[in-house]
Amino acid sequence: MRTGPEMHALVERLYPFCRSITGDGVRQTLAVIGEHLPLDRYEVPSGTEVLDWTVPPEWNIRDAFVADSSGRRVIDFRKSNLHVVGYSVPVDRVVSLTELRTHLHTLPQQPSLIPYRTSYYSPTWGFCLAQDVLDTLPDGDYHAKIDSTLADGHLTYAEHVVPGEVSDEVLVSCHLCHPSLANDNLAGIAVAVALAQALAEEKPYYTYRFLFMPGTIGAITWLARNAERIEQVKHGVVLACAGDRGSLTYKRSRRGNADIDRVFAHILKDKPHEIREFSPYGYDERQFCSPGFNLGVGSLTRTPYAGYPEYHTSADNPSFVDPDSMADTLDTLRTAFSVLDRNRRYVNLSPYGEPQLGKRGLYDSLGGRSDAKQAQLAMLWVLSLSDGDHSLLDIAERADLPFGAVAAAADALQAAGLLKE
Amino acid sequence: MRTGPEMHALVERLYPFCRSITGDGVRQTLAVIGEHLPLDRYEVPSGTEVLDWTVPPEWNIRDAFVADSSGRRVIDFRKSNLHVVGYSVPVDRVVSLTELRTHLHTLPQQPSLIPYRTSYYSPTWGFCLAQDVLDTLPDGDYHAKIDSTLADGHLTYAEHVVPGEVSDEVLVSCHLCHPSLANDNLAGIAVAVALAQALAEEKPYYTYRFLFMPGTIGAITWLARNAERIEQVKHGVVLACAGDRGSLTYKRSRRGNADIDRVFAHILKDKPHEIREFSPYGYDERQFCSPGFNLGVGSLTRTPYAGYPEYHTSADNPSFVDPDSMADTLDTLRTAFSVLDRNRRYVNLSPYGEPQLGKRGLYDSLGGRSDAKQAQLAMLWVLSLSDGDHSLLDIAERADLPFGAVAAAADALQAAGLLKE
Amino acid sequence: MRTGPEMHALVERLYPFCRSITGDGVRQTLAVIGEHLPLDRYEVPSGTEVLDWTVPPEWNIRDAFVADSSGRRVIDFRKSNLHVVGYSVPVDRVVSLTELRTHLHTLPQQPSLIPYRTSYYSPTWGFCLAQDVLDTLPDGDYHAKIDSTLADGHLTYAEHVVPGEVSDEVLVSCHLCHPSLANDNLAGIAVAVALAQALAEEKPYYTYRFLFMPGTIGAITWLARNAERIEQVKHGVVLACAGDRGSLTYKRSRRGNADIDRVFAHILKDKPHEIREFSPYGYDERQFCSPGFNLGVGSLTRTPYAGYPEYHTSADNPSFVDPDSMADTLDTLRTAFSVLDRNRRYVNLSPYGEPQLGKRGLYDSLGGRSDAKQAQLAMLWVLSLSDGDHSLLDIAERADLPFGAVAAAADALQAAGLLKE
Repeated sequence: MRTGPEMHALVERLYPFCRSITGDGVRQTLAVIGEHLPLDRYEVPSGTEVLDWTVPPEWNIRDAFVADSSGRRVIDFRKSNLHVVGYSVPVDRVVSLTELRTHLHTLPQQPSLIPYRTSYYSPTWGFCLAQDVLDTLPDGDYHAKIDSTLADGHLTYAEHVVPGEVSDEVLVSCHLCHPSLANDNLAGIAVAVALAQALAEEKPYYTYRFLFMPGTIGAITWLARNAERIEQVKHGVVLACAGDRGSLTYKRSRRGNADIDRVFAHILKDKPHEIREFSPYGYDERQFCSPGFNLGVGSLTRTPYAGYPEYHTSADNPSFVDPDSMADTLDTLRTAFSVLDRNRRYVNLSPYGEPQLGKRGLYDSLGGRSDAKQAQLAMLWVLSLSDGDHSLLDIAERADLPFGAVAAAADALQAAGLLKE
Repeated sequence: MRTGPEMHALVERLYPFCRSITGDGVRQTLAVIGEHLPLDRYEVPSGTEVLDWTVPPEWNIRDAFVADSSGRRVIDFRKSNLHVVGYSVPVDRVVSLTELRTHLHTLPQQPSLIPYRTSYYSPTWGFCLAQDVLDTLPDGDYHAKIDSTLADGHLTYAEHVVPGEVSDEVLVSCHLCHPSLANDNLAGIAVAVALAQALAEEKPYYTYRFLFMPGTIGAITWLARNAERIEQVKHGVVLACAGDRGSLTYKRSRRGNADIDRVFAHILKDKPHEIREFSPYGYDERQFCSPGFNLGVGSLTRTPYAGYPEYHTSADNPSFVDPDSMADTLDTLRTAFSVLDRNRRYVNLSPYGEPQLGKRGLYDSLGGRSDAKQAQLAMLWVLSLSDGDHSLLDIAERADLPFGAVAAAADALQAAGLLKE
Repeated sequence: MRTGPEMHALVERLYPFCRSITGDGVRQTLAVIGEHLPLDRYEVPSGTEVLDWTVPPEWNIRDAFVADSSGRRVIDFRKSNLHVVGYSVPVDRVVSLTELRTHLHTLPQQPSLIPYRTSYYSPTWGFCLAQDVLDTLPDGDYHAKIDSTLADGHLTYAEHVVPGEVSDEVLVSCHLCHPSLANDNLAGIAVAVALAQALAEEKPYYTYRFLFMPGTIGAITWLARNAERIEQVKHGVVLACAGDRGSLTYKRSRRGNADIDRVFAHILKDKPHEIREFSPYGYDERQFCSPGFNLGVGSLTRTPYAGYPEYHTSADNPSFVDPDSMADTLDTLRTAFSVLDRNRRYVNLSPYGEPQLGKRGLYDSLGGRSDAKQAQLAMLWVLSLSDGDHSLLDIAERADLPFGAVAAAADALQAAGLLKE
């Protein structure tokens, strides 16, 4: 799976499942991902203490509706799983429209759309619907039924690891707890799957760990269960909203100038993009960047959460997601990781004066010309700044040269015995 | 005393006294201030060595004039105490206009105004007058008389302390050595008095020490006599020119980024203002910020010294001072001190992942909405940055949130056991 | 030698010699310089190992030409020494135009000019000529003759030292390896000679060492032979392209903020100029700033190398060099070194409060006026910032005062016992 249309097909296939932070929708989703990528799946029992939190009961839902007195379903879960507030407790009651309204959520400013709402940790029930539909409901009694269960069970998440030369890790994390919402975050999931496949073919330097898990409680659970692994996590990206037609936005880690932050700033320079400073609101970078962990984990999106009118509504459907945009997100991540993977510090072994490059075949023999070539400039820059303090990315930025040219110069100099890592 | 008109009334009452760096004018002024505020008054004998300086003889003046040959007073101290050069030695001579002119000071560019001149450390005598008046004086002999004394006596200054929760101190200093000049510095004195009264009602965190003393030699004397107290002085403001109609100017301490500097920069953001870098010329911040002390003391004025044409002339009279401007200066100082008083560093006690705010009643239970509220954002920011390195003001600035919202979030989190100081 | 015309006369006198990185052209050039300045000349044998390099064979040339079948010289070394590729091996062959072309260098975009080319370390031979001339050559056989020798000999360079109060050194380095090219670098040599003469009359603080040597291999050789001296080298300037009509360009040292960098930034502020960041391409700052040495050596030029169309062509002749521009370069260097020489750190001996300047005759006695004079402000700034951390240049920049005013204030304060070095 490599192309935009292939990734889009995965979005479409995953779209109908009713995901939440626990439950069979998550397992169905992982089963489909597992067709593309071997996964290690973890089931963590309800009630398990994870950091400051507790794994909640598992939620499953079979059906839900609001029917009028004639038995006609005026709100029908079978038409859209957004109609039910996530984690709604079971209900089976006849209520007046007035009472029902206290359980209904609409978007008056976007009257044709169904909003997405959840209530994970405060037991309640509710329905979401278009304001336009609500406006047509006559007074009277309605039958509200939610056939759900909230019971001891498990929180489910999965990992896929692309082994690298070193055990130092790069995390790629995406949330999979949203029901029928395409950009947020099926697009992110699809891009992550394609990225993992591509990396596996490249034998990367770092070990890349892909995390498919519910937002917040999933990241909390993973962090709680992987305390001994945290030290190995050197870099990471939280991936979301990866498929809309907007340009890319990178949000820096809490550190603000972590390697991953600098890599994205460097590679996004030449295309339309936005760099945002860290804030403690957003996706699971909130957890990875909490002050106790403070990992070098940023977040890549196209248009960020809440930045587009379709966000968290029924309009975030597969047609909102653009295959070309997903391909661009994938391409950007591959470029970023190729820089990250290759970004190391070297030491010039001949630091007193310039080494004589010509006698090593690394320099044009004919002098006097004024067009110093990029490759030669790159070698001079690498020699000049390889004092142990500067990474290749530092050098590329200071020299205003493409990272690739600088990395190639380092390779040539190392081969000539002039540089060591 | 709290309102602009009340402060203005104090300016008017203090205006007629003939103040200088020593003498009965200072004592009269302190007596009136003492009606509003309990003062500790200090009398330091002439000849006392204070740092690199020596307390000068005490100067007092009863009368002074220049009279023409008919006995008519053409310059009369009784009409304005600015007419006499401060610290003039006694004189009683008949001199020609030509000789007299060598003792006269005018402002040719502002011919209707009397300038303000002093000569504290170089014995001389002189008169100040309007150029327009000088131009009318016919040649001939004049009787110049200054009935002054320069004799062993005392330098007088006073303190008022508003005790706080801690013994760490904030200095508020204003010079009271200028004779009939209203903005410079009776307005500053009046605002300081009102500020001290207001703080006393608020039971502040810091101890606030108000200093009413002559410029330069007063600050030098205070510093010489309070060596053991300096360590407790954490912040301070020199207050002058507090009542003209110009906008506020804050001049940073020599440190440039002391807490007091950052507080004023923060609270002035939303109103017209100017922030100036430190320079070693100005009011008594010169002394507090001298490199040996290097205190975190800035200076607040409206239009700074020499920045308005009325500066150091007879036009700096009570009508030049605006009650509303004084009220605004007072209000700004109170806001600044409320931030300073509340600006502390906390440590997040649950730094691994986000603590679950919902179970503590600190977070909305209904998820999915995109309008994170300011109060919740403020809590997330305080948790994210409370690593011991960031003060609440740091957090407010980085989060671009009002300081009050951040402080309220810290209170809520501390009450919930998630934060400690 | 002090004026522009005098320096220009030296350029014209040196112009005809056929210099290269070794050989008699260098010795002739040094002999002429030696008429103006006592020189220590060094001869380093071919084959000597210098850092990563080896001193090459010595190259000398007596004659060279390409003649047509009639014996007419179509390319004639006697007309311009640029016609021969520097370090060409001897040749004496009849070749077809087709074969000859593989040894010819032209500038198709500047068809009337002869380019400058060399091949020091890769044995070859070649001729440089105008494209216009090449276009007129008919097919046929040509006699190519280069009467050169490449043999064991020496690399020649020279030093001139202006002794200072201290043994800490400032290097002034200029390359003398270019044949008939006037701006690059006879203008630099002429300005250096005039600068050395001027400094000698001034009894400078630092010791100034002038280096006249071939580019790259000369600097490498000097560095290899002066390992024990490097520690004394505190500052330096590589001087080149010192006479064209463009404005001045200063290129920072690799350190980026060395004293010499700050001095040039300060003194160039008020005239048209450009400041460039360091790059490891250019003149011998490449060697002085290599990471093992990392000296505080910048580079001063007017238009930098390759920045003007005459660069490395026959158009870089004495008429391209402007006497006034050379005088301006000289003047700028003298100003820079006067600041560098005088830029020291002091300690305020009376740091608690302001010392009483008036009793030492350093302050106007009449107070109240608002026109603090520059000299008094400079004293206050020097007192305020002389805490051992700030140099006079730091103070001048922070105070936005002329360096001379700040230095004069330091002198006055030191004379009054208020400051020590």
